[in-house]
Amino acid sequence: MHILFCPDSFKDALSAEEAAHAMARGAARAATDLHPLICPLADGGEGSLDALIAATGAERRQQTVLDALGRPRMAAWGWLADQRTAFIELAEASGLQPLTEQERDARYTSTYGVGQLFLAALDHGAEKALLLLGGSATNDGGAGMLQALGARLLDSQGQSLPPGGAALADLATLSLEELDPRLGKLDIDAAVDVDNPLLGEHGASAVFGPQKGATPAQVQQLDQALGHFADIAANVLGRDDRDLPGAGAAGGMGFAAHAFLGATLKPGIDMLMQQAGFDTLLAQADLVITGEGRLDGQSLSGKTPIGVARAAAGQQVPVVVLAGSLGDGWQACFQEGVTAAFALADGPMPLSDALPRTAELLEARCENLIRLWRAARP
Amino acid sequence: MHILFCPDSFKDALSAEEAAHAMARGAARAATDLHPLICPLADGGEGSLDALIAATGAERRQQTVLDALGRPRMAAWGWLADQRTAFIELAEASGLQPLTEQERDARYTSTYGVGQLFLAALDHGAEKALLLLGGSATNDGGAGMLQALGARLLDSQGQSLPPGGAALADLATLSLEELDPRLGKLDIDAAVDVDNPLLGEHGASAVFGPQKGATPAQVQQLDQALGHFADIAANVLGRDDRDLPGAGAAGGMGFAAHAFLGATLKPGIDMLMQQAGFDTLLAQADLVITGEGRLDGQSLSGKTPIGVARAAAGQQVPVVVLAGSLGDGWQACFQEGVTAAFALADGPMPLSDALPRTAELLEARCENLIRLWRAARP
Repeated sequence: MHILFCPDSFKDALSAEEAAHAMARGAARAATDLHPLICPLADGGEGSLDALIAATGAERRQQTVLDALGRPRMAAWGWLADQRTAFIELAEASGLQPLTEQERDARYTSTYGVGQLFLAALDHGAEKALLLLGGSATNDGGAGMLQALGARLLDSQGQSLPPGGAALADLATLSLEELDPRLGKLDIDAAVDVDNPLLGEHGASAVFGPQKGATPAQVQQLDQALGHFADIAANVLGRDDRDLPGAGAAGGMGFAAHAFLGATLKPGIDMLMQQAGFDTLLAQADLVITGEGRLDGQSLSGKTPIGVARAAAGQQVPVVVLAGSLGDGWQACFQEGVTAAFALADGPMPLSDALPRTAELLEARCENLIRLWRAARP
Repeated sequence: MHILFCPDSFKDALSAEEAAHAMARGAARAATDLHPLICPLADGGEGSLDALIAATGAERRQQTVLDALGRPRMAAWGWLADQRTAFIELAEASGLQPLTEQERDARYTSTYGVGQLFLAALDHGAEKALLLLGGSATNDGGAGMLQALGARLLDSQGQSLPPGGAALADLATLSLEELDPRLGKLDIDAAVDVDNPLLGEHGASAVFGPQKGATPAQVQQLDQALGHFADIAANVLGRDDRDLPGAGAAGGMGFAAHAFLGATLKPGIDMLMQQAGFDTLLAQADLVITGEGRLDGQSLSGKTPIGVARAAAGQQVPVVVLAGSLGDGWQACFQEGVTAAFALADGPMPLSDALPRTAELLEARCENLIRLWRAARP
């Protein structure tokens, strides 16, 4: 039997690729005629670069960039030479995760490093780039990235703006004249997993600012600064993208990627599935097994298991979800094509006991569900 | 589809009957054409009386008896009038559970109340009795039960022995002349879930005495007292049953039931399944779902899910086990006919959170496995 193993990563435990192989090991114990199809996935959030590299066989490259606070950092990116395609994950350069609680200040964090990753890709001759948003420490509307790529953001004194979203309040002049000309031939897809606009109560600052360290007053300050930036951008570009769904992703990076780099904003899971050749694998599969650390009602908004289920439902292939935990409202996933879902734990246990056993638990659950599946086939 | 729901009880959470109905509710959400077959089971241990009553529709009767320490207590027993069959659970009369830690003293606890339950059954006209051992507070070799039924156990002064196993060291005369004559026509099956002999290092006192409060010195004292009792019994009966497998069950009650009452010792799960008409239900079932609080390697020795799996394997019917926890070595159950097993928890959680949610979790797991089962059927 052909089973497609296509989980997301299990946060703090396994990468998507490790999870897929653990599932396949368990299934192999239950089915000696198993033809495993391995397709690690992600939804555009953290771990997406690893999943893309694992799914496509891309080269993993390293680049020294400036992190969200302007400190040197090694950032990984992916390079598919034969397709001249670069995979760039924002969180590798400007991620929130590496910052301590004290360092998180949404006013000053910058996406400059993302621009540096684009330059590295262009230096390799990239013609296509997949930009993975999510996990950002930033709220700068992509301004840092634009500066790294050659845009000039000046205050009324003609001085370059310092890093961070707050400084955009002082923006007087925005010049794209020195923007890297190679960007004109770079086709960019940006993976976003939120629909938020750039500004307002559902905007980047209000919704995501607090988790990046912004106080309520700073949220207001940042929202006004991004609004000023959007006003000037509209003048320069002759087009206003502030209300585009997804513009508010990654502290306004969705806005900048679309408005200045011509990026197409797409749901991350769709982009990952497309790049990984998911449909071709699905066409061969009798059964799909996906999974993620948590499945709940919020998973409906673009999480990996739901993207998988929607695609598989279209082909009438059953989908089982294995999740670390099944949270509030997870049963709504049945309507999206999920056939069944099981949690990993083999009894009451604290999370700290479950995490190091994730691979073993995935194997065991997978073995049992395949045993059941086979028994049901007459 | 016909599904046979035949769990044991889930300790501290649900009776077997409640568990079976929770499973059926979950399955009904996944299968509108469900024909549920409900068969609560037990393995002869605590909860077996409830399961038998639920499975057979027996009357639940109450009888005032003396508990293990000689105090009045209401004890339940079951009565199937049309079959003139009584269900007697030792733990209802002489159980360990109701005693405080301080009260547990294996030297003095008595099975007198079990004899009183037999008398109540005989008064109803019982021709058959199922005696459920397990959960006893006693180590008296069934001597208290025999006294209640009319046997005379006298010391060298001609005085009746006081209650408890320790007093058997003073036994001089054992007379069965006044044993209730109706016992001669009572056919007794005794459910035992252990193979232990009456005496020695694998005997009742050594293996089960400590959990009933016996110190190492008291274990030795009790083993010698039971040995003396067995010597005299052999003289009186002209037959020695001390080495019979199961003789050591329930503090030597297995010995007394067989030697003095002619009881047949049987695995509890087999007896329960027979009484509940399990084979007839199994013959109609496409799938069997059983369960228990815990499934582990020790379940192989006569626990309900394994008894069910062995029977179902003989008829090629798949068996799924839903367990509160899957413990060490549970995978050995595959060899006994278990198709698949799943734990109940829907994520990492402490036992105290899981217990009150047992019914809800059983429903959800059952719904999902039936969804998977149905998807597997072309």
